[in-house]
Amino acid sequence: MSSAVTHRPATTAARQLCEAVYEANIALVRAGLAMDTFGNSSGVLRAANLVAIKPSGVPYDKLRPDNMVLVTLEGKIVEGKLRPSTDLPTHLALYRAFPTIGGVAHTHSHYATVFAQAGREIPCFGTTHADYFYGSVPVTDPLVASMIQSEYELNTGREIARRFEVLNPQAMPAVLVRGHAPFCWGASPAKAAHHAWMLEESARLAFHTLQLNPAARPIAKELLDKHFLRKHGAGRYYGQP
Amino acid sequence: MSSAVTHRPATTAARQLCEAVYEANIALVRAGLAMDTFGNSSGVLRAANLVAIKPSGVPYDKLRPDNMVLVTLEGKIVEGKLRPSTDLPTHLALYRAFPTIGGVAHTHSHYATVFAQAGREIPCFGTTHADYFYGSVPVTDPLVASMIQSEYELNTGREIARRFEVLNPQAMPAVLVRGHAPFCWGASPAKAAHHAWMLEESARLAFHTLQLNPAARPIAKELLDKHFLRKHGAGRYYGQP
Amino acid sequence: MSSAVTHRPATTAARQLCEAVYEANIALVRAGLAMDTFGNSSGVLRAANLVAIKPSGVPYDKLRPDNMVLVTLEGKIVEGKLRPSTDLPTHLALYRAFPTIGGVAHTHSHYATVFAQAGREIPCFGTTHADYFYGSVPVTDPLVASMIQSEYELNTGREIARRFEVLNPQAMPAVLVRGHAPFCWGASPAKAAHHAWMLEESARLAFHTLQLNPAARPIAKELLDKHFLRKHGAGRYYGQP
Amino acid sequence: MSSAVTHRPATTAARQLCEAVYEANIALVRAGLAMDTFGNSSGVLRAANLVAIKPSGVPYDKLRPDNMVLVTLEGKIVEGKLRPSTDLPTHLALYRAFPTIGGVAHTHSHYATVFAQAGREIPCFGTTHADYFYGSVPVTDPLVASMIQSEYELNTGREIARRFEVLNPQAMPAVLVRGHAPFCWGASPAKAAHHAWMLEESARLAFHTLQLNPAARPIAKELLDKHFLRKHGAGRYYGQP
Repeated sequence: MSSAVTHRPATTAARQLCEAVYEANIALVRAGLAMDTFGNSSGVLRAANLVAIKPSGVPYDKLRPDNMVLVTLEGKIVEGKLRPSTDLPTHLALYRAFPTIGGVAHTHSHYATVFAQAGREIPCFGTTHADYFYGSVPVTDPLVASMIQSEYELNTGREIARRFEVLNPQAMPAVLVRGHAPFCWGASPAKAAHHAWMLEESARLAFHTLQLNPAARPIAKELLDKHFLRKHGAGRYYGQP
Repeated sequence: MSSAVTHRPATTAARQLCEAVYEANIALVRAGLAMDTFGNSSGVLRAANLVAIKPSGVPYDKLRPDNMVLVTLEGKIVEGKLRPSTDLPTHLALYRAFPTIGGVAHTHSHYATVFAQAGREIPCFGTTHADYFYGSVPVTDPLVASMIQSEYELNTGREIARRFEVLNPQAMPAVLVRGHAPFCWGASPAKAAHHAWMLEESARLAFHTLQLNPAARPIAKELLDKHFLRKHGAGRYYGQP
Repeated sequence: MSSAVTHRPATTAARQLCEAVYEANIALVRAGLAMDTFGNSSGVLRAANLVAIKPSGVPYDKLRPDNMVLVTLEGKIVEGKLRPSTDLPTHLALYRAFPTIGGVAHTHSHYATVFAQAGREIPCFGTTHADYFYGSVPVTDPLVASMIQSEYELNTGREIARRFEVLNPQAMPAVLVRGHAPFCWGASPAKAAHHAWMLEESARLAFHTLQLNPAARPIAKELLDKHFLRKHGAGRYYGQP
Repeated sequence: MSSAVTHRPATTAARQLCEAVYEANIALVRAGLAMDTFGNSSGVLRAANLVAIKPSGVPYDKLRPDNMVLVTLEGKIVEGKLRPSTDLPTHLALYRAFPTIGGVAHTHSHYATVFAQAGREIPCFGTTHADYFYGSVPVTDPLVASMIQSEYELNTGREIARRFEVLNPQAMPAVLVRGHAPFCWGASPAKAAHHAWMLEESARLAFHTLQLNPAARPIAKELLDKHFLRKHGAGRYYGQP
């Protein structure tokens, strides 16, 4: 990637955002969640109305902090010489729908994508899942033809937001887009990427659990509460203070 | 591999072809698509009536640009001290049947080979697949005994060509040879090798999708169109201009 | 991990215990049995009433011998500036119930966790399993709600101990906690970690054996005896004297 | 492994045999076919009545050419300070039963062991398999109790030999020992190890083929003949002259 496509963000905050988003994109690759040009991470700086996102169709080994694309929350390009990811409108819809999140990670990680392709939510069969996702990971409904043909990427985000009208995006930081793949989010780009990793591990466990026991049942509500809340609840006692 | 089996192509164009074909062969190994002596890549220079291909039965760690074998499109050896891949007649049949392609890649990559052995085409269950293959990846019919006993490798190519009488090789750059393994192609040796990689990823996704949901249905035509065409169609907007 | 959270154990024996427990934790990572902050190893020095264990929620790349936490067998912190693993009460219950063991290893290794999530014990389908585990690896019963809501980690250990009232922990150095994951043990932290590895291999073999042949039967008692006893029995002849 | 357990073979031929057997053992590890202390390779020098084999229970990272154990074809230790592999009597039975072979490789490689545990032979579903194994890879019958309790390892070899009364060990250089794992052989220790690798690849392909299509049928006899014989038959044309 020549200097022709890099740029130097105008502010320190923008530079830090680009670096964090670059690191989150690379974290996806290191965890084996992204290959080829699939997947993309972004981050938002709400005070500055800035979103940084991976450029479209650029292989991961060509990424650098300086070729992340900076746009507004409305999608207007602020800085950067490359086209943003085609999935940008989905990311922006998520930032608008979920005011508390700071980063979004989209991958085609294998087992999460398998559940998305099979059109099945991921049940919580164990405590690995319960440590990060408070219940079944939902799957979106199919988009109708007109929603695919026009504003497809934006409609994907809208459909996720619609699915979360009855869900808490902080307790469930992931979704499966039917026939496509997962989107994850978190308080920062790094946390979003981390959720993408934990989602893949949970999906892989659930996949093989269902192969071994097609009648497997989700864990009891009390066990789900215990694990999710000892880590994320008000009285949490997992980890260091 | 001693110098006894290397050669120096007579022209710059031939040298470049050998290098591109060497790189494509090595790309198969790096992506985990080829092991032992299985698999082979080739490339064509139609203006010069030259095809370069991997030598037969040579392990990948012994390959070098200078031991690729150069033949005509009719299969006559032009340069090289080694026997060409036994699959050469299949490659040549593909170059003759598909005038727009510049490279062919054959692998025994795991999940694509599993579909070939099971005699099942690979349905398009998601957008990963739709980004590269415009519909189900086809599988050839079994060869009759006489087609196996005589001119087996040529008949394999003929059978692929016959299967593609009703298909567009640019929209579907891959096929499964029943009981054997996949062949892929593209505008260049590198693109053919890249399709071999994407085929394996699509096959692995489809395999596990069917394990999770044996009644899984291919994605809607509109979604297939959207993903394939936003990347390969006239109005494509994926990637950089 | 800054020096702020490390400490220097007061005695040579305590230092050696911390080093052995650190090595056992790292062995889990090297064998692919532990990721993120899941899993933990501990070791006991019964004469000194000392248990060393991984600190809670610390990623494996931040571990050092000097940030292991030292506690008594009753769970009182002796040395260390970090919180011990939340699973400490489970480890302590195992040390109390099984007087001959010197180390405990807990992982979320993939296939062992799959059996735990599916609520199935791991049958002994072959000699790989029989070389280390003398029969089916048991799975605990579900905890009732009150046992989850109060003293959950301690009750997990109690439930394991209850399950082993009819089993010999030296002949069966592993258990699956239903809906959670495996716990393993051994004469030392290193042996416990080694059993965690062998358990995962046995679980992976059993998983695929059941996929290939859902009616697969455990090996004959005579073959189980032969393999387990030629390695662990009084007349053992496997390995070096 | 200290010098206390190494030795220097008395003859050049014995040294070369130990080196070849050492290399074959390490090749099993490199190909991911052997872990822990499972598996062992040996080689024979019939003119000198010498067999070299891996020592028992020694981890692969402690192996060196100088700690291979040298025995006669009758099992008498000639040189070496370590106990030979407990599977030695099986290897010796194979050398006696199959006069043309020069090496034996035993692994617990995953998918081959899965077929052994499931008690199923590995059908020839494709040309990858047909390139190395001329038909279904057989599985032995269970040993009766008395054959397990006395001379177990020798009886394992006898049972393999009995199974091959109707098979050609050169066209079928592998067997699955029911409830245990595969044994492979070849003209040299290196060829035996190579067959162990190809067996695992064939087993993995067959496993997933059966998962995808439980009614999958072996390839036609003509295709099996074509692939096996173009590589191993009198008129072979695969590879270099």
